Amino acid sequence: MTAIPVSLGPRRYDVRIQPGLLDHVGGLTRAVAAARSAFIVTDSHVGPLYASRVRASLLSAGYEVSLAGFPAGEPHKTLATLGALFDQVFAASPPPDRDSVVVALGGGVTGDLAGLLAATLLRGVRFVQVPTTLLADVDSSVGGKTGVDHPAGKNLIGAFHQPVGVFIDPGTLATLPSVELASGLAECVKHAVIRDAELLDWIETHAPALQAGDPACLGELIARNVRIKAAVVAADERESGERAHLNFGHTIGHAIEAVAGFQADPAHSLRHGHCVALGMAAANAIAVARGQLPHADAARVEALLARLDLPTRYANLDPGQLLPIMRRDKKARAGKLRFVLPVRLGTVEVVDDVTDAEVVAALDYLARPTT
Amino acid sequence: MTAIPVSLGPRRYDVRIQPGLLDHVGGLTRAVAAARSAFIVTDSHVGPLYASRVRASLLSAGYEVSLAGFPAGEPHKTLATLGALFDQVFAASPPPDRDSVVVALGGGVTGDLAGLLAATLLRGVRFVQVPTTLLADVDSSVGGKTGVDHPAGKNLIGAFHQPVGVFIDPGTLATLPSVELASGLAECVKHAVIRDAELLDWIETHAPALQAGDPACLGELIARNVRIKAAVVAADERESGERAHLNFGHTIGHAIEAVAGFQADPAHSLRHGHCVALGMAAANAIAVARGQLPHADAARVEALLARLDLPTRYANLDPGQLLPIMRRDKKARAGKLRFVLPVRLGTVEVVDDVTDAEVVAALDYLARPTT
Repeated sequence: MTAIPVSLGPRRYDVRIQPGLLDHVGGLTRAVAAARSAFIVTDSHVGPLYASRVRASLLSAGYEVSLAGFPAGEPHKTLATLGALFDQVFAASPPPDRDSVVVALGGGVTGDLAGLLAATLLRGVRFVQVPTTLLADVDSSVGGKTGVDHPAGKNLIGAFHQPVGVFIDPGTLATLPSVELASGLAECVKHAVIRDAELLDWIETHAPALQAGDPACLGELIARNVRIKAAVVAADERESGERAHLNFGHTIGHAIEAVAGFQADPAHSLRHGHCVALGMAAANAIAVARGQLPHADAARVEALLARLDLPTRYANLDPGQLLPIMRRDKKARAGKLRFVLPVRLGTVEVVDDVTDAEVVAALDYLARPTT
Repeated sequence: MTAIPVSLGPRRYDVRIQPGLLDHVGGLTRAVAAARSAFIVTDSHVGPLYASRVRASLLSAGYEVSLAGFPAGEPHKTLATLGALFDQVFAASPPPDRDSVVVALGGGVTGDLAGLLAATLLRGVRFVQVPTTLLADVDSSVGGKTGVDHPAGKNLIGAFHQPVGVFIDPGTLATLPSVELASGLAECVKHAVIRDAELLDWIETHAPALQAGDPACLGELIARNVRIKAAVVAADERESGERAHLNFGHTIGHAIEAVAGFQADPAHSLRHGHCVALGMAAANAIAVARGQLPHADAARVEALLARLDLPTRYANLDPGQLLPIMRRDKKARAGKLRFVLPVRLGTVEVVDDVTDAEVVAALDYLARPTT
């Protein structure tokens, strides 16, 4: 079993990766959270697929197990859903106590919701992450960010609350729709651009195997990316410094997600990773225009994103609609607009002086045909 | 100005007490939370009385100030109200950023709600407490407990989030209804019983002046009690040990509050302190029955509570209704029922072995006429 420590002093925990791990969640949880009762939080997609296996494992490890469910999808990542989950948890028998452990079983939405539930249940109980999407495996399950959305923006309500363990079973990716796989791959490309140019080579080489769902290849991809995420989080748990680098592609990406994500027709919805891919293309365009990133590097990243079935162009984005959303982004401090820009592949910097005109030019760039 | 430090290392802050402090909240806040914007959270009772003074002070200290309000009363301390406050905060101009500061202006409900709002706004912003009731002055504003109620129990949803300052203006007590003053005095008696027998003498001596609203006397009472609360919190921020002593009177008190508080007719509602007074009388009865507290000490505490217009008797409490609520109390760990019992005046201990029969006997005791 691969075990990657997230070195956060008293809040240290391990990310464990192994095919078939779903059937060992009980024992692994018992090792980090002795308790009478466990509460599985899962959604209407993942619950029917995996909840019974996780429940059986928790039962055999001696927990009394309750389940709290919610309808799948980012539109349900709200304070109202959190309230409905609390109703289920408090109606459970036995009721939760301060030793109880919450088990987040699902993708990023589930991890964010269950994490915030754990952060605020009886003023904070322990939780473990059992991610079932590539995006959650390599990004959202590690680092302790929890939260729900508000009509004013994504993740505006939340807390930093670290899990006591993250248990990743790459076998769960076998049931993941290809569009969700692509969404997760976008965050892997992001990790490569901000920290690890060699990972960019590796993804380029293994793109066909990754898209074919090769389990060993996906396992290695997850481990490589968790190591990067864990190192960034360990260096800056509360996002006061370098953790901001993880927001590469997210300033414009979040704004695009706010206006173009969550379409009534799921086939036309952009997933989080798709918006980040567009955001990375736009940020790279700004960096190229500033003369701080060679055009060839930006083109290489775009080519890889395209190979991974991720978008790099998007027409008809309205700066008048996007700029106010970007100013509202919680990464904005005291009214300034902040961007993460590459200085070369594998290295980024945070700049606070990107002008509206540069953003407009980047959105124009996204509307152009690929060259 | 009296300044009492709450020694919590990197989360250290001062409690400042002085008549007229409301007009200096801006400068005091500026000293601990440089920011562009401040968000006053207050209720429909306190807002009309004091919000304009606090707003003027914050404006003159250079903040852009927004106000978020909610209907007064414990029944509104819910996740739904928190959502309505978030709606107001995110609609404000300028919108909040991570440097923004939340100003809790009001009693315990306001402090708990505003504190949880601050704990979860953009994953945590700073907040200051400006309490306006005796209960909030001496108890809820100090220590970082925040939260909302759930139909299953009080404060079941919340977080530990320390304020960066607590600014107490004893002048606000001039507008406090006497029933609310009595409610706060119950927590003062609690502090005396758990930590400071000399304070019990002091309250006995000064009871008439306190009930008459003597400002100097109330100022000294607040300072004495904040010192006790601050010392307990500093020793055990997250309630893993001695902070549990503050729950003296609260095990049965919370259960009584759940069944007898919040009546439709406010005249017949028991305030928090009234329930704690009953809880202390019941806990003392258990301690006397166990032979660990002299009857005379219990009688002395009851006599003082009665002098302070607090109840020590309550008929028709149904153990079948109260016991399940006590088992659900979040201080319960792994199914055990926990009590704080005095071993002598000024000293308490935590016991985990109180039986249902002892609780039933204590409730019977509450139903007897005073002797």
